[in-house]
Amino acid sequence: MKKEYAPSTDLIPTPVVLVTTQGTEGHANIVTLAWVGVVNSTPPMVSIGVRPERHTYRLLKERGEFCVNVPHRGLVHEVDVCGTVSGKDTDKFALTGVTPDKASRVTPPLIRQCPINMECRVAHTLDLGSHTLFIGEILAVHRDASILDEKGKICLEAFEPIAYCPGVHDYRAVGEKIGWYGFTKGKMP
Amino acid sequence: MKKEYAPSTDLIPTPVVLVTTQGTEGHANIVTLAWVGVVNSTPPMVSIGVRPERHTYRLLKERGEFCVNVPHRGLVHEVDVCGTVSGKDTDKFALTGVTPDKASRVTPPLIRQCPINMECRVAHTLDLGSHTLFIGEILAVHRDASILDEKGKICLEAFEPIAYCPGVHDYRAVGEKIGWYGFTKGKMP
Repeated sequence: MKKEYAPSTDLIPTPVVLVTTQGTEGHANIVTLAWVGVVNSTPPMVSIGVRPERHTYRLLKERGEFCVNVPHRGLVHEVDVCGTVSGKDTDKFALTGVTPDKASRVTPPLIRQCPINMECRVAHTLDLGSHTLFIGEILAVHRDASILDEKGKICLEAFEPIAYCPGVHDYRAVGEKIGWYGFTKGKMP
Repeated sequence: MKKEYAPSTDLIPTPVVLVTTQGTEGHANIVTLAWVGVVNSTPPMVSIGVRPERHTYRLLKERGEFCVNVPHRGLVHEVDVCGTVSGKDTDKFALTGVTPDKASRVTPPLIRQCPINMECRVAHTLDLGSHTLFIGEILAVHRDASILDEKGKICLEAFEPIAYCPGVHDYRAVGEKIGWYGFTKGKMP
């Protein structure tokens, strides 16, 4: 039986990523975001929603670049720490011990320990209320060999990505395979 | 060891949802989308990326309303079927057997079998290339009592949501809890 509730963001699950930014001065920053999504395939684009009061917002406005670093479950402490501490006074690379690697197309660093990194340049900005949406065109992607199978495809069992469940506030493992795109061939069983 | 690749949408996992639309005439439609994300908290907003050649695109342009229906794993066949068949010539409610329920604030119906529904009105539209981004303000939310615990909070074990892994093309269960927002209190172990 359904009941109606006041409007809320009831999307479950969402991704959870570490976004790196670098302003015109000072250290690079890391922030954990779940308000992230793919918005376009060609050219590839992702969006991130950032509150204007966040340190990341200022760095995004200064340089218009960011990297989306996709974590594995072994990084869940780093994910939580970077979502609860402000980068205004803290170097989160030093705090968490993750390693900044040089990106090839943008200034913000890649996080070495994240198996996937996407280098992005801001293509559109949209003020929506509590958050500003930054839409980034993906300029380059990096994948760690440790998550690829012998054919070079991503292996989820090797990757062990993290899902976030807003509202419930859980970090969850990505569990067993229950199907694949096209497995029904468009027909109900 | 990392290797650089051409730009691609390497976000893993993403949500996967059933989006309902209703034009000015004809039957309501259902489409499966993974290019969906939360973009704003106050007011609550979600975005969906839709290709202009899709039937859903025309219905969105006609009425500017949609519902995001969040499936559980028991609906994985319906999710796949609605992502592989066009609604131009097919009534996907009839094809899948899911039940349309009347929404309270918009015209497109809710899918009864989805434990969570969000009624949305398009607030912004942005043409990005292959996809157009429709940003919807969430006007009402519906939750099924079967996924709520005794305190009225969402219970993921009762819900059993689905995660999608683009690139790999897997539908995956949401697995075990590996942490919760704030569990580190901002400190590394």
